[in-house]
Amino acid sequence: MPAAQPPSASASSLERLFSPRSVALVGASERSIWSVSAFDNISRFGFDGPLHLINPKGGVIHGRQTATSCSAVGEQIDTALVMVPEAVLLETFDDLQQAGITSAVILSSGFAEAGADGLARQQAMTEKAASAGIRLLGPNCLGFANYTAKTAIWTTPLRRPMPNASMAIVSQSGALAGQLEQFAYQQRIALTHMVSTGNEADITVADVIEYLAEQPEPKSIALFLETVRNPERFIIAANKARAAGKQIVVLKVGSSEAAAKAAQAHTGSLVGDDAVFNALCLQLGIARVNSLEELIITTDMFARMKPAKSRGLALLAMSGGLCEIAVDQADELGMSIPELSAETKAALREVLPTFATPANPVDMTGGAMMQPELISKAINAIAQDPAIGAVGFVFDVPTKDDKRGFARNFIKHVSDGFNSIDKPGLMMSHTFSAVSSEGKALADEFGLVYSGGGLNQTLKALGQIIALSNFKPAEIASAIPQTDTRPNTERAVLDYLASHGTGVIPGEIVNSAEDARRVADTLNCPVVLKIASPDIQHKTEVGGVMLNISGGDSAATAYTKMIEKVTAAKPDAHLDGVIISPMRSGGVELFVGTMQDPQWGPAITVGLGGIWVEALKDTSLRLLPITENDALDMLGELRGGVLLDGFRGAPVVNRQALARTIVAIGNAALALGPDLVSLEVNPILASEHGIEALDGLTVWA
Amino acid sequence: MPAAQPPSASASSLERLFSPRSVALVGASERSIWSVSAFDNISRFGFDGPLHLINPKGGVIHGRQTATSCSAVGEQIDTALVMVPEAVLLETFDDLQQAGITSAVILSSGFAEAGADGLARQQAMTEKAASAGIRLLGPNCLGFANYTAKTAIWTTPLRRPMPNASMAIVSQSGALAGQLEQFAYQQRIALTHMVSTGNEADITVADVIEYLAEQPEPKSIALFLETVRNPERFIIAANKARAAGKQIVVLKVGSSEAAAKAAQAHTGSLVGDDAVFNALCLQLGIARVNSLEELIITTDMFARMKPAKSRGLALLAMSGGLCEIAVDQADELGMSIPELSAETKAALREVLPTFATPANPVDMTGGAMMQPELISKAINAIAQDPAIGAVGFVFDVPTKDDKRGFARNFIKHVSDGFNSIDKPGLMMSHTFSAVSSEGKALADEFGLVYSGGGLNQTLKALGQIIALSNFKPAEIASAIPQTDTRPNTERAVLDYLASHGTGVIPGEIVNSAEDARRVADTLNCPVVLKIASPDIQHKTEVGGVMLNISGGDSAATAYTKMIEKVTAAKPDAHLDGVIISPMRSGGVELFVGTMQDPQWGPAITVGLGGIWVEALKDTSLRLLPITENDALDMLGELRGGVLLDGFRGAPVVNRQALARTIVAIGNAALALGPDLVSLEVNPILASEHGIEALDGLTVWA
Repeated sequence: MPAAQPPSASASSLERLFSPRSVALVGASERSIWSVSAFDNISRFGFDGPLHLINPKGGVIHGRQTATSCSAVGEQIDTALVMVPEAVLLETFDDLQQAGITSAVILSSGFAEAGADGLARQQAMTEKAASAGIRLLGPNCLGFANYTAKTAIWTTPLRRPMPNASMAIVSQSGALAGQLEQFAYQQRIALTHMVSTGNEADITVADVIEYLAEQPEPKSIALFLETVRNPERFIIAANKARAAGKQIVVLKVGSSEAAAKAAQAHTGSLVGDDAVFNALCLQLGIARVNSLEELIITTDMFARMKPAKSRGLALLAMSGGLCEIAVDQADELGMSIPELSAETKAALREVLPTFATPANPVDMTGGAMMQPELISKAINAIAQDPAIGAVGFVFDVPTKDDKRGFARNFIKHVSDGFNSIDKPGLMMSHTFSAVSSEGKALADEFGLVYSGGGLNQTLKALGQIIALSNFKPAEIASAIPQTDTRPNTERAVLDYLASHGTGVIPGEIVNSAEDARRVADTLNCPVVLKIASPDIQHKTEVGGVMLNISGGDSAATAYTKMIEKVTAAKPDAHLDGVIISPMRSGGVELFVGTMQDPQWGPAITVGLGGIWVEALKDTSLRLLPITENDALDMLGELRGGVLLDGFRGAPVVNRQALARTIVAIGNAALALGPDLVSLEVNPILASEHGIEALDGLTVWA
Repeated sequence: MPAAQPPSASASSLERLFSPRSVALVGASERSIWSVSAFDNISRFGFDGPLHLINPKGGVIHGRQTATSCSAVGEQIDTALVMVPEAVLLETFDDLQQAGITSAVILSSGFAEAGADGLARQQAMTEKAASAGIRLLGPNCLGFANYTAKTAIWTTPLRRPMPNASMAIVSQSGALAGQLEQFAYQQRIALTHMVSTGNEADITVADVIEYLAEQPEPKSIALFLETVRNPERFIIAANKARAAGKQIVVLKVGSSEAAAKAAQAHTGSLVGDDAVFNALCLQLGIARVNSLEELIITTDMFARMKPAKSRGLALLAMSGGLCEIAVDQADELGMSIPELSAETKAALREVLPTFATPANPVDMTGGAMMQPELISKAINAIAQDPAIGAVGFVFDVPTKDDKRGFARNFIKHVSDGFNSIDKPGLMMSHTFSAVSSEGKALADEFGLVYSGGGLNQTLKALGQIIALSNFKPAEIASAIPQTDTRPNTERAVLDYLASHGTGVIPGEIVNSAEDARRVADTLNCPVVLKIASPDIQHKTEVGGVMLNISGGDSAATAYTKMIEKVTAAKPDAHLDGVIISPMRSGGVELFVGTMQDPQWGPAITVGLGGIWVEALKDTSLRLLPITENDALDMLGELRGGVLLDGFRGAPVVNRQALARTIVAIGNAALALGPDLVSLEVNPILASEHGIEALDGLTVWA
């Protein structure tokens, strides 16, 4: 993966945009629902700076006197929301410039999203803005809401800020940002910021992430992406967010080919190879999710929960059926709900109601309903187990006013339990439930982390938190020295790989039957003969491969036959000779190949060899360079990985050595520079002879 | 799969239980939260028959005069809710019998769920009830609510019945039934019935399903299962429900091994092999789901939607981002969102707002917000496409009072669209959203099918509806005639299979070198020699297999060598001779094996052969007997199924012929009767020589 460059200076230049001291609504009008909403939002948020309404005709709008232009205001304006038709946009910029405005939010659409003409208009506008020193959010965006600064420049109705906000939303789609805000509100999840970036003519999601990384309030960022317009800047921003302790959670469309096509039609932008983006997330420590609900629930839980101490999850619930559902779901998610130690079981037994069994998950039974102090004690007992890294308790906060104080008392005890342990703890609802203000207030009062996401969704989110709790960004490898070598025959590629530390099959090029005899005798094992020629790609078809030849005599005969056949089939080919190598059998075949992604650069793929695995598309991919740990993770992702571990009596493959080989191949590819399209090593054989590349191929631009 | 037996008479005997004319609460007490809840529920539901409170001490409870026993009441009582401690249960039954009560709901716990002693108590109680002619629901259950009869015999607080109910809940766990009811209420999904079956000492889920199949109101049934106590009856009930047009949707725990273990500890009952239960669902047309939310959302949608006309789904939404998410999710779910015909596109173009593109999914753009009649027209246009079987529109009903009437007008137009087409249509929320009474009333007013399940969950449910829309239960095969044959050597098994219509590799048993020469010469191709002996399982280890022998001379020599080697290794083995068969290579290897499931009976598994696929556990399973279509479905489930279709230039396998072979093997296994533990055919080779079993093995009880 490309090393991070020093951060740009752009983040701080967004301070004025996102925390304006004064705002202008340009194109304010009673007849525009955008204008009405924007004005309402500003009032509802309690923005306390000057607000100027601009309309060329002047008059009173939204109950206020308007100015006919920004420059006519005669005061400093930090940010302008521009709601004028595309046709008058350029002259509007003249006005903004004259008024000394440096930040503009462009609601107007009809630009890059509307085809080639629109794209040209967008470019003209962007140049105009740049020359006027104006930063642009949009066009074709709904604006932003900075809840922490009580500032909403947003053109559809928003709810007012809620207390205890700790997550932000950044979305390329304004409509979806609105849906995410609505869902977050239903779950009583408070937001610090919400930014819709639209066509990103100037400011991209990467800029916004960098800006948010510098803000104290957001602890995590929910990101909806259709495309990444500036991959290098995105990596820098993601690294900056991580360094600042802010988790990014992303929902990116384009996981299917059809969606990639749809997005291309829709935004005119390249959605890119989804497998590469997935690798990027893994390497940057970004959590990736698949639905709008999951995006909000997961980001919220990241914002409020401590990292897990280890992989094991402990669960407590009030019914046995629910425990069984939880176990099934955890199993499907690849999560660990470990058995408890004998000590933990003994401790737990002391604090469980009659009929309850000390196990994980713990069915507290209905009996605990009337003895909530048992929940507190059970949480405490189970959290002591060394195998446990995080604790969840399945229970709902009340949906209505808690007249008898039953829920209050119950939740106080649950919170006591969670507050007394040093591992992350969560109370999770049974099913997806809208969270009431009463329920939220109760949880907040006792410092309880509660999610209404339901067992299924919160388990998924816990899985992400656990998986990323020990994430460490890969040590940036020192730059790989470039070489001028351009290996382009099988043997040249293998020799080049060997010079980079990859084990390769021994081989000697011979030019006579006599030499063939000598080499075969020296090797003293069955051998393989292959024609060596830069002009011949498909050796088998021209009789250029002979397998399993035993003894010097046979090798000499085979040499003569091969030269005859190949010469007959390809009379014009230049022949370097014939390569003689030991014949290998048994072991496990793999393939390793590198590629150049047009957006993200060089990447490497590993898979198990053979037609079966090819048919099943069982491969793993990462951006280059990778570390040994990355390579081990890649092997761990292969569904057929069990074949490496001595399946059905086969020899066990040394995964560490294999990982070193994969790293070496990746570095060897990088050293060949950007002209290399692909370096393919297929197969690599892991056998009693160690790990050896048997064949290699390069493709050049 | 076992053929359905004639239905039992038990369903009608539940009429009195679930629609009682009069009810007794036995063990009524102010201090019991169960008693308080049960009494409140009966009032809240508006039960209009006599209600008797029974307490041995008499007096006034819940504001009513109690009787000291049921028999003291002196009136006919249909159903008694029994809330007495387990210790006095048996004498309570004497009272019930004396009072002529024939149905009892047993809340009390401490029975089978509490170990061996509890199980003994449960058996004693069940015998007592049976001899007294009393049907039992429970013990260890929370009761039932018959919303259609305004009757709740349920011991935790319930909401009152809502109008337009069309789905029922049946759950072995009372606590989870309560959670499901709460979630359904949040989604404003009205229930017809809710039944908690608890330990099922007498009445099981199968009985309740049969009962519901006879009721007019429920159109679908949500089922939570930990175990199936009477498999045969379950199949009968499921078939009955299907015949009555009522879809069953099931959440069954035990998909993971850990959950199966947990359930065994928890309920003392066998959870069974999950793959077998899954096959059962496929063969009975039961929809299977994985979460509580999915159970309710899916069952509700089945209850209210027409079957799909074909597999293609059309989607409309108000934002491009959402369309892309939908496409990704549909792709992951294996659903089809087909391209539209040129005619449909042309028709659609006429009714779309500016900038919107006629495609599937259709991004209606924000422009349609002010022109809801366009939505109606677009739904109509897209539904005309022959590739489209169902239509979804992503939009939310209002969460609050719709003061300006905007939502009302919008939803009226959407409903007009859906009501004008003859294909199933659904308005689905963007995200999981609690549905307000106002929103629900609005949808109901216009006859709109709306789900608040969110894009992700409703797409999943649509996938199930589409998949089951053309489900037809397999024609019950006429009973397979049993045979007394007990084939137990490789050749005997192959010959037996051949007699049942399976292609098998030719082979002849020879008893002399001379015969070996003759057979090899006749075959006139490379041959395989294998020792034939009932006493030798592992032929290779004793030198009993020789491959790729060419010509009569070599075959004769090989015969002599083999007899020598095998005799030396296994001097006591009885030798039938040596089998000579043609040597096969190329083609695709598969395996087919049958097994006996302890709960569900004989089943068949198909997989692609080879170590890779074994490592990847890529197999498909069905209960026997199966049809050719079942077998084709099984091949379709194999991830590596692409290998059958001429992958990388290999010959294409005739799937129809392969399916016939799989059916024949299944029938051959059934004909061998219940003593057969397993019939394994491994490999079956599909090659230029057709489909041939190369090896066969039987295991007997």
